[in-house]
Amino acid sequence: MANLPFTHAEYTTRLAKTRAAMAIRGLDAVFITDPSNMGWLTGYDGWSFYVHQGVLLTHEGEPVWWGRDMDVNGAIRTTYLNSDNIVGYEDSYVQNPVKHPMEDLSALIRARGLECATIGLEMDNYYFTASAFVTLQRELPNVRFDDATGLVNWQRAVKSPTEIDYIRRAARIVERMHGIIRERAAPGICKHDLIADIYHASICGADGHWGDYPAMVPMAPSGVDATAPHLTWDDRPMRVDENTFFEIAGAYRRYHCPQSRTVYLGKPPQKFYDAEKAVVEAIEAGLEQARPGNHAEDIAIAFNTRLNQLGFVKDSRCGYAIGMSYPPDWGERTISFRRGDKTVLEPGMTFHFMPALWLDEGGLEITEPILITETGVECFCQTPRELFVKE
Amino acid sequence: MANLPFTHAEYTTRLAKTRAAMAIRGLDAVFITDPSNMGWLTGYDGWSFYVHQGVLLTHEGEPVWWGRDMDVNGAIRTTYLNSDNIVGYEDSYVQNPVKHPMEDLSALIRARGLECATIGLEMDNYYFTASAFVTLQRELPNVRFDDATGLVNWQRAVKSPTEIDYIRRAARIVERMHGIIRERAAPGICKHDLIADIYHASICGADGHWGDYPAMVPMAPSGVDATAPHLTWDDRPMRVDENTFFEIAGAYRRYHCPQSRTVYLGKPPQKFYDAEKAVVEAIEAGLEQARPGNHAEDIAIAFNTRLNQLGFVKDSRCGYAIGMSYPPDWGERTISFRRGDKTVLEPGMTFHFMPALWLDEGGLEITEPILITETGVECFCQTPRELFVKE
Repeated sequence: MANLPFTHAEYTTRLAKTRAAMAIRGLDAVFITDPSNMGWLTGYDGWSFYVHQGVLLTHEGEPVWWGRDMDVNGAIRTTYLNSDNIVGYEDSYVQNPVKHPMEDLSALIRARGLECATIGLEMDNYYFTASAFVTLQRELPNVRFDDATGLVNWQRAVKSPTEIDYIRRAARIVERMHGIIRERAAPGICKHDLIADIYHASICGADGHWGDYPAMVPMAPSGVDATAPHLTWDDRPMRVDENTFFEIAGAYRRYHCPQSRTVYLGKPPQKFYDAEKAVVEAIEAGLEQARPGNHAEDIAIAFNTRLNQLGFVKDSRCGYAIGMSYPPDWGERTISFRRGDKTVLEPGMTFHFMPALWLDEGGLEITEPILITETGVECFCQTPRELFVKE
Repeated sequence: MANLPFTHAEYTTRLAKTRAAMAIRGLDAVFITDPSNMGWLTGYDGWSFYVHQGVLLTHEGEPVWWGRDMDVNGAIRTTYLNSDNIVGYEDSYVQNPVKHPMEDLSALIRARGLECATIGLEMDNYYFTASAFVTLQRELPNVRFDDATGLVNWQRAVKSPTEIDYIRRAARIVERMHGIIRERAAPGICKHDLIADIYHASICGADGHWGDYPAMVPMAPSGVDATAPHLTWDDRPMRVDENTFFEIAGAYRRYHCPQSRTVYLGKPPQKFYDAEKAVVEAIEAGLEQARPGNHAEDIAIAFNTRLNQLGFVKDSRCGYAIGMSYPPDWGERTISFRRGDKTVLEPGMTFHFMPALWLDEGGLEITEPILITETGVECFCQTPRELFVKE
């Protein structure tokens, strides 16, 4: 029996929400390749997204898990699906230039009576390649394909109580990771040794709960490297008069709680204190707008207005939806905190309010994972909202 | 100045090899999205592949790195490219259903005079989505697009001496990780605590070299879960009379040395000893065929023949090329050890000889990362080639 992270009733609700969205779009079926959507719909959990796989969902019956033969056992072990609805393809399709796994999927689609259906594809989600699309078009000339990018992701925006509990468990983990950074960062410590300690904490977990792998590895650049947001680590020692930001997440059963903080070793230049003050005040201004009924953009506008008043500018989005995820991204790829995003905030939505500044001298990341409540907002973490200075 | 992992001369050689392959295929340019190919051609190293990005290479001049505005600094910090050849797109393109980053890339392609060119696309490599392709087709009606899946990957098959050195450093790391498993696996140890220790070792590194993040997380299922190859971990304690396989890799500057071993706590049933004997003998038979001039399939045929003689069957490929990689796969996605793969083995090629057996009772993984030498084969690791039994 699969050890499912949610009740059958919760999966039933998810399928119903997804089918309602499919009906509005006139879709007979969707083929879902985003691993987080596959997991959210069926429970499937395995590192097999490096080969073609997916979930086929129609309006009737269970979804169908389809993937590589050797991963059928993984689907049996992690989903609620009957074995009739777990279908494998032969191993010679794997990374073989003369044949494509989507030929096998096409046969399945025909076998399920969908050869003239309207089928939604996640055209811009992860792991659905251009070749996959071209092969399906060639093999299924009478299917009408429609773009269903994000269709399932949007159903995930409002979290259930169990999902929120899982994010809270992840929050305890990321708090612990930041505690370790605060304790151990020091001049002369090699970056990779500190990262090793952070990883160790993230998997040991916190508060009695184990840690899953986050969908991104720690980003931890120092000094001028920290003008770039997505560099990882190397073996250089941390130095006096240098800043390092740590963009990390705790994860529990694929649910993420990301949070970033910045460490300064030595006495920071006034510019860093000014930036810290501006970001913290602008976060407060943003949080005041974080409540049901407001729009996602209201948070960004309040944040940017206050930030600009204090002499700083940020020209990228300052937040995004979070929840269940697999590499390469712990975001949910739906709602963004930026001007023009008119999504109405609802209780149960979860975000990484991520107002990072990348200054000429280095980066300052002080961020807050948040939950929209019935009346306003709750920050998931108690990590002190400040630049960590170790003189 | 970027801290490049290879000399300029080595990058020049890589560009020349790639351009020769482009010329044979009649390509004026290629647009490369696979992060490992981007890094191999330019040095680029950042966890930014969760948004659209790529490298545009023609027959003249430097490649062009193209990506999100905020990642321009990362490209400046990690590549040898002049800033003219590092081009960012505006942040509002990110995960925005009303516009697509490939519209911006199309403008760049026009600006570089390629609006009527023949351009190769990595149609089935990672992170090049169906939407990306459809958008490029729409925006560039006079470009002839051709499938260049794997074109760069194939240029990477024979490793340079520096690349081999990096894999050797990764080999020392994975040996150390297996040493820790051997030392600490015991009844009652919670799986996640052991995984935390393995991770810690992988990043602390070995033999004076730091550890980078492997492109896959450890896979470590126990008992019946180990009939499935790609499950990760949870918090259940390890138990007596249970097997667990550990599919892990060391990584140094994105170069991987994967190796798997299996631990049995208690006294294994005879079936496990039989399987161990069969796999070890079949590995020896395969290794005898691993030499320059032979075909990739020769290793698989020798392996499978001996395995079948000893009463076991494996119906999936038993090895693949390895080298530089990013998530979600540490394989190079070119050569496979399986019947029909007629690739001629050459000195400097590197593989994960990966003859895992997934039996009804659980998995047995005893694998060897190997280097084809001038005269035969070398195993990268000294990890004992056996089932680890801890009674």
